[in-house]
Amino acid sequence: MSESSAVLLKPQRRPILAVTCGEPAGIGPEVSIRAAWQLRDEINSVLIGDAAFLAMIAAEIDPQIRLVALSQQALRNNGLPNFPPGQIAVIDCPLDAHVQPGLLNARNGRAVLRTLDIAINGAQQGIFDGMVTAPLQKSTINDAGVPFTGHTEYLAEKSATAQVVMMLATDRTTPPLRVALATTHLALKDVAAALTFDSLSHTIDILHADLQKKFGLAQPRILVTGLNPHAGEGGYLGREEIDIIAPALEAAKARGIAVSGPYPADTLFQQKYLADADCVLAMYHDQGLPVLKYASFGHGINITLGLPFIRTSVDHGTALDLAAAGLGRADHGSMLAALSVAAQMVRVGWAHRAHA
Amino acid sequence: MSESSAVLLKPQRRPILAVTCGEPAGIGPEVSIRAAWQLRDEINSVLIGDAAFLAMIAAEIDPQIRLVALSQQALRNNGLPNFPPGQIAVIDCPLDAHVQPGLLNARNGRAVLRTLDIAINGAQQGIFDGMVTAPLQKSTINDAGVPFTGHTEYLAEKSATAQVVMMLATDRTTPPLRVALATTHLALKDVAAALTFDSLSHTIDILHADLQKKFGLAQPRILVTGLNPHAGEGGYLGREEIDIIAPALEAAKARGIAVSGPYPADTLFQQKYLADADCVLAMYHDQGLPVLKYASFGHGINITLGLPFIRTSVDHGTALDLAAAGLGRADHGSMLAALSVAAQMVRVGWAHRAHA
Repeated sequence: MSESSAVLLKPQRRPILAVTCGEPAGIGPEVSIRAAWQLRDEINSVLIGDAAFLAMIAAEIDPQIRLVALSQQALRNNGLPNFPPGQIAVIDCPLDAHVQPGLLNARNGRAVLRTLDIAINGAQQGIFDGMVTAPLQKSTINDAGVPFTGHTEYLAEKSATAQVVMMLATDRTTPPLRVALATTHLALKDVAAALTFDSLSHTIDILHADLQKKFGLAQPRILVTGLNPHAGEGGYLGREEIDIIAPALEAAKARGIAVSGPYPADTLFQQKYLADADCVLAMYHDQGLPVLKYASFGHGINITLGLPFIRTSVDHGTALDLAAAGLGRADHGSMLAALSVAAQMVRVGWAHRAHA
Repeated sequence: MSESSAVLLKPQRRPILAVTCGEPAGIGPEVSIRAAWQLRDEINSVLIGDAAFLAMIAAEIDPQIRLVALSQQALRNNGLPNFPPGQIAVIDCPLDAHVQPGLLNARNGRAVLRTLDIAINGAQQGIFDGMVTAPLQKSTINDAGVPFTGHTEYLAEKSATAQVVMMLATDRTTPPLRVALATTHLALKDVAAALTFDSLSHTIDILHADLQKKFGLAQPRILVTGLNPHAGEGGYLGREEIDIIAPALEAAKARGIAVSGPYPADTLFQQKYLADADCVLAMYHDQGLPVLKYASFGHGINITLGLPFIRTSVDHGTALDLAAAGLGRADHGSMLAALSVAAQMVRVGWAHRAHA
């Protein structure tokens, strides 16, 4: 074999992904370890959580799994060592109270938040190529005295990003289904008032830019729902389509973006429409996500667009009941997908920069 | 063959179903004729529409189709004749203006409404065993000067029913998926205020009673969504689950109804939950229907519960673009399903009464 072909065959650098292990009493630690271990040849995962607690779980899952803990201090002094695929790095972020699987403890709420801070800081400094988050329990963090509405909102705030876009995706469908949201974690009664020409325009711009930059789509095609049933039926069932959504879509088209709509949400999610689209933009949480989760069979993932770094997440919750019943019951399919898609986004970014 | 076995083998009486042909410029007339003709051996369909217009379409679809027109006057004088399967009855309800397929004309709005009135009156008098509706265009009726928010609401009003429940269903899934709605055609901003303990309780009662009476389910199992994302996440994303929905479910359980919830709408629609349920009760239109229509591939149907008669409908719209392009483009699968399910409900009702 000639030297040049040997170079060509040399495996690409593995993307380094921070993985926050989420609520310790839930299934997050287990699915994080299982997925990181399974993908160790393709992804250099760096778990962030209580190192002793994670080591205990790893030993129970499979004695072969090797976790190597790093202190934050060591990381600050020496940076991240390049771990070989035979082991997984852990950045130690100690819990404040003993964990009983299935049982929430507000005393651990702040430690869970610290795992996010470590991942965000490292991603912003370029130590990590991206971050992947296991599910946490919002109420625990709120009960610990920190107002918290969700990962997505927290990441935006900590990275000083004025607006982010939440997108869920699955490759269990043909073509892959992606659903982005114009509003996220709001009480339903507050949704209509939160939708403005400016916020929707900004959402469309972020979606368009990140579908190009992080997904490698040259001219992404975006289908947009209405806010009201039947997209307002010509104004008889609400006027937001006429007053806000249609004008925002016209303005986006004038900026060269391939948007169309507003379409009735109940008929939009059909193969004949989805076949020619790269993404659906729904106006709110429960309008867009039930179909995505129905179609993905629990293997969907959550992607935050608009951040200065790559972030994906599982699309399920902490599943306290499964955690309480013991290891071996949780399905780590969504975490596998979250890691894989993040790694793919990292590689698209590398290709984008190499090409630029 | 003995006389008694001949009696046993005698085909059951065919259910008599009124079929309103809907907006004449849309695909309603075509799908009504095609489905009625295809099912003529099982169902005695009575089309209601402009007899001359329907005869013209039928001739173009298939010269074998025999439509026999009845005037309303003849019907009043002699009742409904018993047509053999080789022909379809039409109750003549003349249009007021010439029809150009694909082009709405408000001058025909009142004639469309009259077809509904004929079907409702006949169903209430027991001339019909039930009614099936093709899609109409709400805006045309409103433009004709009659305030109209939808079939469902109109049927409730005309039959003096205080509250009805809209349910969509498909048998394209295993088990069949049924989704009922706690609120229907409301602007999104008005949904939260429309949800009350009393209205929700009444919806649950209607759903329970009709799943027993019209679907033959002895103890129907109903899964109920929350109103807010994540079912309010313990009150952090809205309080309607705590203040309204959970108390209404507790009260329903105390009445012996098998309800459970409130569950987050985005995770409820998964096979592991749906496998053990007969029906999902969603809080509003775009929370429940996108999944149903995604899963049914355009073969879902709409069923109005709580009325003093049986009513089903297609789940699609008038498809003016298809109608404009000429006959032969519309899929009559949803109308076939609407007729079949209505007929099945009629037979369950007959069995119920025979048993009582």
